[in-house]
Amino acid sequence: MRTVPVGVSARHIHLSPEHLAVLFGEGASLTELKPLSQPGQFAANETVEVIGPKGSFPKVRILGPVRRRTQLEVSRTDAFAIGINPPVRESGDIAESAGIVIKGPAGEVKIEEGVIVAARHIHFHTSDAEQYGIVDKQRLSVRLSGERGLVLDQVIARVSPEFALDLHIDTDEANAAGAKTGDQVEIIG
Amino acid sequence: MRTVPVGVSARHIHLSPEHLAVLFGEGASLTELKPLSQPGQFAANETVEVIGPKGSFPKVRILGPVRRRTQLEVSRTDAFAIGINPPVRESGDIAESAGIVIKGPAGEVKIEEGVIVAARHIHFHTSDAEQYGIVDKQRLSVRLSGERGLVLDQVIARVSPEFALDLHIDTDEANAAGAKTGDQVEIIG
Repeated sequence: MRTVPVGVSARHIHLSPEHLAVLFGEGASLTELKPLSQPGQFAANETVEVIGPKGSFPKVRILGPVRRRTQLEVSRTDAFAIGINPPVRESGDIAESAGIVIKGPAGEVKIEEGVIVAARHIHFHTSDAEQYGIVDKQRLSVRLSGERGLVLDQVIARVSPEFALDLHIDTDEANAAGAKTGDQVEIIG
Repeated sequence: MRTVPVGVSARHIHLSPEHLAVLFGEGASLTELKPLSQPGQFAANETVEVIGPKGSFPKVRILGPVRRRTQLEVSRTDAFAIGINPPVRESGDIAESAGIVIKGPAGEVKIEEGVIVAARHIHFHTSDAEQYGIVDKQRLSVRLSGERGLVLDQVIARVSPEFALDLHIDTDEANAAGAKTGDQVEIIG
């Protein structure tokens, strides 16, 4: 059986070095609250407010380290709540995605693109992918069992020697399935 | 192909006659805003506030007509937001479910049980069920297609001459699938 642990992503943001400086002040850096499942990634102590046309989230967790471009990842439920309409995208694919206002203790930025609903995906270490017979960018189906059991199709395989085995879904997907971080689920196709 | 239209249920409440009187005043009745897909059911103009330990929803739509017992239906996302932990249940099965405080213009009630996350289900008119070869209480699997395609298992068939054909899912399930009211989906097993 090809099992994978679940990692549920709540809304979060990645910041560019330039935006970090505007939001937290020149020379500011992110400080680690706790490590994430992917090697080198961490939840920062720092948070920002994100402000949409119909509402805002006052404390959105920043994930570090900084990235080349700022990216806010929200669930569809979140998006409705604050009045934005981001596309479902793979991380990093932000061209013509949604915009948002971001506010930090030292300043504010308005981004014209960078807000997405993350496409469900599995991180595979190269050796996991080999063992499971899976290649990068393959589309997979994964069964989540239980009283709200469902099968997620269109799960994107991402393979790298930098990755640790983990199925990343958002809170809508987790809640629809009654799933939580650490559950073990099965790749069925 | 056995297709079914989708009906997405946002959080809503059904009130008992006794609670309606407390919340809106002796002799008050519900007034119809618009009919629902199920014959005789309607969204009322009236709303209530529901108050949990960690937050509240100020305007929860009442669905009419009144029912024997008060029942609040929320998504898992809603439940986390206001700090309650309702079970996944079929409508009407509220024994030892979660409690909540409900506030109306004329008064307030605290219920000890009645809050549930609705179990996904399909309403079949008896003639639809016959045509599709489906019996009451059967568990079905339904495919929702698209970029967030998934298969919902554990879908409960409910058959009655009072029902109109409709798959009822909550906002978490709809958002996880990228589905909306009126989409046509397929029963696959």
